[in-house]
Amino acid sequence: MSIARNCKHAGMLMLTVALTACTYMPDTRQTRNVVLLIGDGMDAHQITIARNYLVGPTGRLALDDLPGRADVGVVTLDEQTPGVFRYVPDSANTATALATGTATSRGRVATAPRTDVDLPTIVELAAAAGYRTGVISTAEVTDATPASFVAHIAGRWCKTPRDMGRNPLCANDRVEAGGPGSIARQLAGSDLDLLLGGGREDFGEGDGSPRALAETAGFTVLTTAADLAAAPPANRWLGLFTEGNFAPRMVGEDGRTAEQVGEGGAFPAPMTCVDNPGASGQPGMLEMTRSAVARLTQDPGRGFFLMVESALIDKASHVRNPCSSIAEVAQLDEALRFLVNFADGHGETLIIVTADHTQAAQLVPNTSLYQNLGDPVHTPGRIARIQMPDGTLMGVNYATNSYFVEEHTGAHVPLHTNRPEVLAGFLTQSDVYGVMRRFLGL
Amino acid sequence: MSIARNCKHAGMLMLTVALTACTYMPDTRQTRNVVLLIGDGMDAHQITIARNYLVGPTGRLALDDLPGRADVGVVTLDEQTPGVFRYVPDSANTATALATGTATSRGRVATAPRTDVDLPTIVELAAAAGYRTGVISTAEVTDATPASFVAHIAGRWCKTPRDMGRNPLCANDRVEAGGPGSIARQLAGSDLDLLLGGGREDFGEGDGSPRALAETAGFTVLTTAADLAAAPPANRWLGLFTEGNFAPRMVGEDGRTAEQVGEGGAFPAPMTCVDNPGASGQPGMLEMTRSAVARLTQDPGRGFFLMVESALIDKASHVRNPCSSIAEVAQLDEALRFLVNFADGHGETLIIVTADHTQAAQLVPNTSLYQNLGDPVHTPGRIARIQMPDGTLMGVNYATNSYFVEEHTGAHVPLHTNRPEVLAGFLTQSDVYGVMRRFLGL
Repeated sequence: MSIARNCKHAGMLMLTVALTACTYMPDTRQTRNVVLLIGDGMDAHQITIARNYLVGPTGRLALDDLPGRADVGVVTLDEQTPGVFRYVPDSANTATALATGTATSRGRVATAPRTDVDLPTIVELAAAAGYRTGVISTAEVTDATPASFVAHIAGRWCKTPRDMGRNPLCANDRVEAGGPGSIARQLAGSDLDLLLGGGREDFGEGDGSPRALAETAGFTVLTTAADLAAAPPANRWLGLFTEGNFAPRMVGEDGRTAEQVGEGGAFPAPMTCVDNPGASGQPGMLEMTRSAVARLTQDPGRGFFLMVESALIDKASHVRNPCSSIAEVAQLDEALRFLVNFADGHGETLIIVTADHTQAAQLVPNTSLYQNLGDPVHTPGRIARIQMPDGTLMGVNYATNSYFVEEHTGAHVPLHTNRPEVLAGFLTQSDVYGVMRRFLGL
Repeated sequence: MSIARNCKHAGMLMLTVALTACTYMPDTRQTRNVVLLIGDGMDAHQITIARNYLVGPTGRLALDDLPGRADVGVVTLDEQTPGVFRYVPDSANTATALATGTATSRGRVATAPRTDVDLPTIVELAAAAGYRTGVISTAEVTDATPASFVAHIAGRWCKTPRDMGRNPLCANDRVEAGGPGSIARQLAGSDLDLLLGGGREDFGEGDGSPRALAETAGFTVLTTAADLAAAPPANRWLGLFTEGNFAPRMVGEDGRTAEQVGEGGAFPAPMTCVDNPGASGQPGMLEMTRSAVARLTQDPGRGFFLMVESALIDKASHVRNPCSSIAEVAQLDEALRFLVNFADGHGETLIIVTADHTQAAQLVPNTSLYQNLGDPVHTPGRIARIQMPDGTLMGVNYATNSYFVEEHTGAHVPLHTNRPEVLAGFLTQSDVYGVMRRFLGL
């Protein structure tokens, strides 16, 4: 078991804090809550780029004020030979590890590699034990990260009834084959108290649609920020606030993203980050989180598990859009600040902020450290030179791929927590699941 | 003051461990030692690449077993307008922040931006307070990182008497102008008990050379591993084991480094990491560290400050040589394992492992996650597909620059420590200096 392994290693060092982290048990007389915030693709570069833009290099995000840190190793297995490692994950296998404690292969949603066995998730275990449960994302709620906490299927693209008929990976789970159906259908049939995010189009409309199934199962469907503010407190909530993913709150001016250096080494003009009018109707991550916590804490003494995903850090990085990634780290940070205040005085509340995987963006010089050496010196990829609030320029490089999407990268990911006595040092994503499960006594 | 700032922020969270970290004072009745290990360019990618190669994704390095983590922000100032930030550092300004607690501009060695004022280093303060002091590097000892702990000069390239006459940045410190001379000359005149590394050619030979000055000042010059093993315990040591930088312990077979993808999208053949015969005569970082600790602990009750730099992680990454970076992380890890064992039972010994800055290398898929989408999909930079001990392939991408050297990157850097009660959370490199100084009561 992962925690035992950590204990053995840390114990060797005979260190008080590490030993505490290994043996820590929350006060079971108090209400216990776990909030897992996942910044999709939120690595040290993304955090630093956002910090520099939002508060400057000597400023502090709410993330920075959390006292605990750990490094979290990402384990990806080969689908055909699950004993063999792959070194770069996707959001499905990493969310599965966090949600179920089991490493799997890329693209899998809470299922085991090759055998396709369903893996119980912490949301299911928590709900069965009487905890309130919630999932929030700024992606479609059918996307890999939220889906892996609730649904079980071989392929992350098996989102809708229509996908089920087209994608061979979905075959085992087709309703016609006696399976639970698409991810949207599985979400509609879940025990969640609330599921908030985008992806309205994946739920369809009318008889037999996942949306209708959700309503039959007792979900109130919310589609606007006003719906959320007025949501009936006694009902279960399915928030489908956008057709697809949420729109990012900032974009580059005139829709600009990172660009290639021109002939003769001419760097792109500075890029200004501007508010995105397309995001104005959406509830923010802070509003969703605040509403969710109010909903999940209605019954005194009953704890909750809540997963909140800041999804667009990754999605914006795939398409070389640094302003959108910054805005999405800012959203996560706002929700975190609220949660830290909530945790202070609400029983035993464990907050974990981590990433599922690292991403392509690199903080680089806005020209080059070697620009005085003669020849034109520049990235072979695409660079954005972001106009900072203080007038300086910050360079962000995207150069993992010549294609229209950048690659994920495979480094271990950061973890921040309000409870360093609960987890510290180095652990895998499966170990993080073990820590959360133990904290909730599951 | 930095520590006070950390206290204020952490205190707001009312967390026991964070408060302990802010108020921690070592037991002054015990001998106090500080070891600062700097992995030059050792970011999460470099550590993960090395872990995957050396022990596999589920294995653990000595680095992983350290219980404490922090994020360390890098602050770089503009030379002409020191109130203005730059976002990507070099090894001189970052080592200066760690050594002196003061942010400066790129290229500066323990001097302030624009004013060129000398900044006292922790080595100088520790020596003046009666601590033993040592500096070790696998680079030339005149290189930016070791130099910034001992010397003071406007330009990192002012290494030798010859440089002093050629480089205008060196003008203020020329001996002829009443200055202390080149970095080599300043090292020769230092109070260090030991200085071990490469760079013999920078010390010259004969009358008036830095080497002769060092011998006059009481240093015994060591040039081989055998010299080190037999070094006179009562003398001060100047180890100059290689003419320039140390040779890396591993290289790509046939000297291969990362390569561009060929016409039609043909990826480079797998690369095998092989032992480098050129490194066979050098003492390892473990041997240097073990000898140094024995030398620095001769007087019971007298503590020490030791800086150990694993320099070639960065240098190998600049030239797209992943095997050499891996071998250099391995060297740091071996020295760390020895130091952790030493610390366990030797008074109050604080071990800090950190990086000066992040670097270009990225752990990427060895082909592409999007290879099934049709077109050839590949990095626009250079990729190495490393043959792993278990037969799999790991991809490492270098794509910050089309030039013959890759760029540094500017993310916050990792920090690992054996004493989480002493430092945690987020702090700047100048704050790390404050923590070390406070620990030693300076």
